[in-house]
Amino acid sequence: MATAPAKPLALTLGEPAGIGPDITIAAWLRRRELGLPAFYLLGDEALIAQRARMLEAEIRIAAVSPGEAATAFADALPVVATGERATAVSGKPDASSAPAALASIRQAVSDVRAGFASAVVTNPIAKSVLYRAGFRHPGHTEFLAELAATQAGVPQPVMMLWSPRLAVVPVTIHVSLRDALAELTSDLIVSTVRIVAAELTSRFGIAHPRIAISGLNPHAGEDGSLGHEEQTVIAPALKILRNDGIDARGPLPADTMFHEAARQTYDCAVCMYHDQALIPIKTVAFDDAVNVTLGLPFIRTSPDHGTAFDIAGTGKANPASLVAALKLASRMAAAIS
Amino acid sequence: MATAPAKPLALTLGEPAGIGPDITIAAWLRRRELGLPAFYLLGDEALIAQRARMLEAEIRIAAVSPGEAATAFADALPVVATGERATAVSGKPDASSAPAALASIRQAVSDVRAGFASAVVTNPIAKSVLYRAGFRHPGHTEFLAELAATQAGVPQPVMMLWSPRLAVVPVTIHVSLRDALAELTSDLIVSTVRIVAAELTSRFGIAHPRIAISGLNPHAGEDGSLGHEEQTVIAPALKILRNDGIDARGPLPADTMFHEAARQTYDCAVCMYHDQALIPIKTVAFDDAVNVTLGLPFIRTSPDHGTAFDIAGTGKANPASLVAALKLASRMAAAIS
Repeated sequence: MATAPAKPLALTLGEPAGIGPDITIAAWLRRRELGLPAFYLLGDEALIAQRARMLEAEIRIAAVSPGEAATAFADALPVVATGERATAVSGKPDASSAPAALASIRQAVSDVRAGFASAVVTNPIAKSVLYRAGFRHPGHTEFLAELAATQAGVPQPVMMLWSPRLAVVPVTIHVSLRDALAELTSDLIVSTVRIVAAELTSRFGIAHPRIAISGLNPHAGEDGSLGHEEQTVIAPALKILRNDGIDARGPLPADTMFHEAARQTYDCAVCMYHDQALIPIKTVAFDDAVNVTLGLPFIRTSPDHGTAFDIAGTGKANPASLVAALKLASRMAAAIS
Repeated sequence: MATAPAKPLALTLGEPAGIGPDITIAAWLRRRELGLPAFYLLGDEALIAQRARMLEAEIRIAAVSPGEAATAFADALPVVATGERATAVSGKPDASSAPAALASIRQAVSDVRAGFASAVVTNPIAKSVLYRAGFRHPGHTEFLAELAATQAGVPQPVMMLWSPRLAVVPVTIHVSLRDALAELTSDLIVSTVRIVAAELTSRFGIAHPRIAISGLNPHAGEDGSLGHEEQTVIAPALKILRNDGIDARGPLPADTMFHEAARQTYDCAVCMYHDQALIPIKTVAFDDAVNVTLGLPFIRTSPDHGTAFDIAGTGKANPASLVAALKLASRMAAAIS
């Protein structure tokens, strides 16, 4: 019988002026109905209390230590203080919030590494706010990889978008399409797919993961008449991966990989660039896709949306993606515990 | 009350060794159940009779002239002879079939231009077979554009993929992704969207078409930090199109354009390259998407699949896309009649 992990999930505050506090409150209120795993927010009790009043949410908040969070969760939203006040008003981002957002991420990583939490779930941050406060990482995921660095170096984080209907991984991510063409190498495909294959087994419990690899060009290059990268970059990577014993199929024409029948034939689609991966998953799982970071020494999931400043504090924010992120993190933690 | 057009549709033979004859027979057999408009096949009566025997399909064939086809359709599959025998065996393409395939296309165009037929519907061809027989056009669509040339030149054909749930148009089509980046210009976007807007009105009966234009880069370039083409190529095109009075929105992040709620906000999505357009439509309408050629002086639709040599003559071919192509051609003909 599967047992839920005893340890709670560490949920970061995210951008205080965004919808992170809103969806955290909304998710906790529906904890029983949705069967949510226990989590605690690393943040500022006063901010949550104020946002709950704004949303007219009847909520109890418990200021706890990580060790007390799992027990407290049934009756109150457990908040573990980071020591940084978050003063921004909802919908009005302010650089003064940056220390609170960053402290929350740092503490979540240190909690999970210290064994207080089973996984890190992150609320959305606003990179532009952090940049104004001196943040120097390209994004949330790269910052987490930096926090996970060891003497062996900084691990390669791999972004997966997961939903019950489709999981996708882009090999190149947040770069222009022109730069994606320049960055795409056999080595990058190999290192990415190796991480995907290993973690589909270790963290998703799939003994023999089937990985579908897209081509880069229309019709996967049509035997070289519509581009050569399938032959010069992708096929050599596939050869190495198959020699590893990985069930990697392709390069497949990207346009016919994502209809319902095709999706039954693999566990994860690895795509060559951002939109090739994100168009299909956001088409079939717009509300409940989860952003999962593979390649880190801990589990990290995140809702697949931004800070939505325009609806923060209004009660309109949909917690579906955060709920899916909490549930997936718990499932992944159970798979390895 | 809408009345079906009196004129029949001219259906081409396509590649004789492919599934074109199979799906033509299957569609005709279900003409009453599916409420199909009258059509006639431009082909070879003996080939159809032979394929029907192979499929164990009980079918009557009527050798007719185009003018007799609409009346004959209720009781027999009307076949108008092109004078070229199609001798290839199902599943075994042979260059000897090329004259029959090409004559069928030429005659369909001349029939529709002469007023015998309301639209051209084309069965799939095999470019490799035609190339071996000396065909020199890049594809089916370009050949049709050539046949439609006037003293003013060859018209710009625009490929639309249409389904009841989504219509998409790629600005660049069958070129490598690298070449798509090089070919993408403001002029090409403007000329493409003008054709799309005009024909959504004239042939689809949409008085004020709403056209969603994608960005090229992830997140539509995120204000230039992930690529500049949104600012240097797409935005200038949008300005010209809006000055024309066209309701063109964008550039929009491609990954969030295609979920169900987003699709309600526009009539057609114009995308920058093949997979950006074809991934979403093949994800949501794999079986019943129709290929429509805009920009020609006549209506042309086509099933959105290939010759499927591996299942020709087996009875496994699904006529859904041909059925959708016949129905859409009839609807488009009614809109302008």
